[in-house]
Amino acid sequence: MDVKPLGDRLLVEVLDAEEKSKGGIVLPDTAKEKPQQGKVLAVGSGKYVDGKLLPLDVKKGDVVLYGKYSGTELKMDDRQLLMLKEEDVLAIIVK
Amino acid sequence: MDVKPLGDRLLVEVLDAEEKSKGGIVLPDTAKEKPQQGKVLAVGSGKYVDGKLLPLDVKKGDVVLYGKYSGTELKMDDRQLLMLKEEDVLAIIVK
Amino acid sequence: MDVKPLGDRLLVEVLDAEEKSKGGIVLPDTAKEKPQQGKVLAVGSGKYVDGKLLPLDVKKGDVVLYGKYSGTELKMDDRQLLMLKEEDVLAIIVK
Amino acid sequence: MDVKPLGDRLLVEVLDAEEKSKGGIVLPDTAKEKPQQGKVLAVGSGKYVDGKLLPLDVKKGDVVLYGKYSGTELKMDDRQLLMLKEEDVLAIIVK
Amino acid sequence: MDVKPLGDRLLVEVLDAEEKSKGGIVLPDTAKEKPQQGKVLAVGSGKYVDGKLLPLDVKKGDVVLYGKYSGTELKMDDRQLLMLKEEDVLAIIVK
Amino acid sequence: MDVKPLGDRLLVEVLDAEEKSKGGIVLPDTAKEKPQQGKVLAVGSGKYVDGKLLPLDVKKGDVVLYGKYSGTELKMDDRQLLMLKEEDVLAIIVK
Amino acid sequence: MDVKPLGDRLLVEVLDAEEKSKGGIVLPDTAKEKPQQGKVLAVGSGKYVDGKLLPLDVKKGDVVLYGKYSGTELKMDDRQLLMLKEEDVLAIIVK
Repeated sequence: MDVKPLGDRLLVEVLDAEEKSKGGIVLPDTAKEKPQQGKVLAVGSGKYVDGKLLPLDVKKGDVVLYGKYSGTELKMDDRQLLMLKEEDVLAIIVK
Repeated sequence: MDVKPLGDRLLVEVLDAEEKSKGGIVLPDTAKEKPQQGKVLAVGSGKYVDGKLLPLDVKKGDVVLYGKYSGTELKMDDRQLLMLKEEDVLAIIVK
Repeated sequence: MDVKPLGDRLLVEVLDAEEKSKGGIVLPDTAKEKPQQGKVLAVGSGKYVDGKLLPLDVKKGDVVLYGKYSGTELKMDDRQLLMLKEEDVLAIIVK
Repeated sequence: MDVKPLGDRLLVEVLDAEEKSKGGIVLPDTAKEKPQQGKVLAVGSGKYVDGKLLPLDVKKGDVVLYGKYSGTELKMDDRQLLMLKEEDVLAIIVK
Repeated sequence: MDVKPLGDRLLVEVLDAEEKSKGGIVLPDTAKEKPQQGKVLAVGSGKYVDGKLLPLDVKKGDVVLYGKYSGTELKMDDRQLLMLKEEDVLAIIVK
Repeated sequence: MDVKPLGDRLLVEVLDAEEKSKGGIVLPDTAKEKPQQGKVLAVGSGKYVDGKLLPLDVKKGDVVLYGKYSGTELKMDDRQLLMLKEEDVLAIIVK
Repeated sequence: MDVKPLGDRLLVEVLDAEEKSKGGIVLPDTAKEKPQQGKVLAVGSGKYVDGKLLPLDVKKGDVVLYGKYSGTELKMDDRQLLMLKEEDVLAIIVK
């Protein structure tokens, strides 16, 4: 079974604290809007810019930073998933 | 009798819990905005992008995920139906 | 005497409950936003899409579904009429 | 002395109840947003659509339906006038 | 010393009641949004429509009607002035 | 050290009351939104209009009128500075 | 490990008070919206203007002024970082 995000949406798997500490980025408790990390499982067909369909900047397999209150949660086989729009993605973590 | 959605709208039949558990996706009780699943019965003529009419990405027969508070409910011959806009659709479930 | 809707507007005659039950669609009492049915009496000259005037998708004679709180009511010779914008129309009922 | 509306605006003279009853349209007391009738005295130079100036669909002399709370009232020689935008006009009454 | 309005702005001198009564337009006390009259002292370079700079429809010397709560007041040599945007102007009074 | 405003922004030095009274413009205490005067120290690279980068209408050295609550204050070597967007500028004072 | 901002976003390292006082700009305590200074560590691929992807005006290494409540905080190896959108940047400090 597969989930195919629509348009400018993407499906990420939420990364837990342990995995995040390995990555070296610590999010402060006092942060106004704490970003989270997730691994991209699937991306939509793209976004329309001035009438042309462009692929998303985010690819399957990327680890992304996104705002804490972004997206729609879902759960599949005990994995914590999230549907995001690309505009909710702050940055890609490159290791 | 038939219902023909207008423009970027689609008509879905709401899938109940049993059908959903077969699909493997469980939506957590604590989710901020719980997505629902539905089967697409009909789609509109399409959306305008920069002056061109493009067909919707969602087709008749697709099973789609959508936000809980999206759309307008209606009932026909005891089936629970919903009129959605394509932008309310988060993803297509491919089995 | 005639009423000619402007632009993307249309004039519908509200269909009462009896006429609707014949149509097979029952709108649940618990629906968040109950759609209504109406028969299109007249449509405007069209909508502008990227600078071009396109005719509306709805035609005179169509039976349409629309949201309960849409439009502006008026009464003519004891008939209940409603001025809608095409974007208020959810779907066309084809029998 | 003359009043020349700007752009997509028009000047109407408000029609009173007696004149309206002759027209055959009665506006119900329970209407959510009661439309009014007025006679168009002057129209602006037009509206810009995708960079082109198009004349308004409403002409001098038309009798129009408009929403009750639309426009800006003014009074000239005891006549009740109203400045409207064309988008406030619901329909033209053709007799 | 001179005040040069920017873009789609204009500078008007507010006309007082006596001057207005000469003009024949009386604004009712019960009006929802009472329009005011002013004389245009200077206009900006124009407005951009689809990428082209077009001159304003209002010219220096015009007497204009505008909504009561529009614009920014200033005072110069005891004259009451007002900075408006062209969209705040309802109509030009032609005598 | 220099401050280079971005895009459609400009840096102004706030002019105090004495300098303003010389200019002949007095802002009434009862004004709804009192405009202020400032001298332009630097302007951004311009604004995008329909995809083309156009220089700002305001130049370095201009004295400008702007709304009282516009912009972001900063202080440099005891001078009171303000970062504005060009749309916050009402007019240029030409002496 | 590297953080690659998306689109029109940039990653800045927040500069503390001491570093700022060297720069000569003092931000008043009474300022309505106090701007902050940061050093740009990375910028996104650019912004879309009328369908064309243009590079950002801000480059890696620039010292920028931004509004106090802008962006999303994160922390990496004890450095205070911030994800901003280019529109949050008021000016570039050139020394």
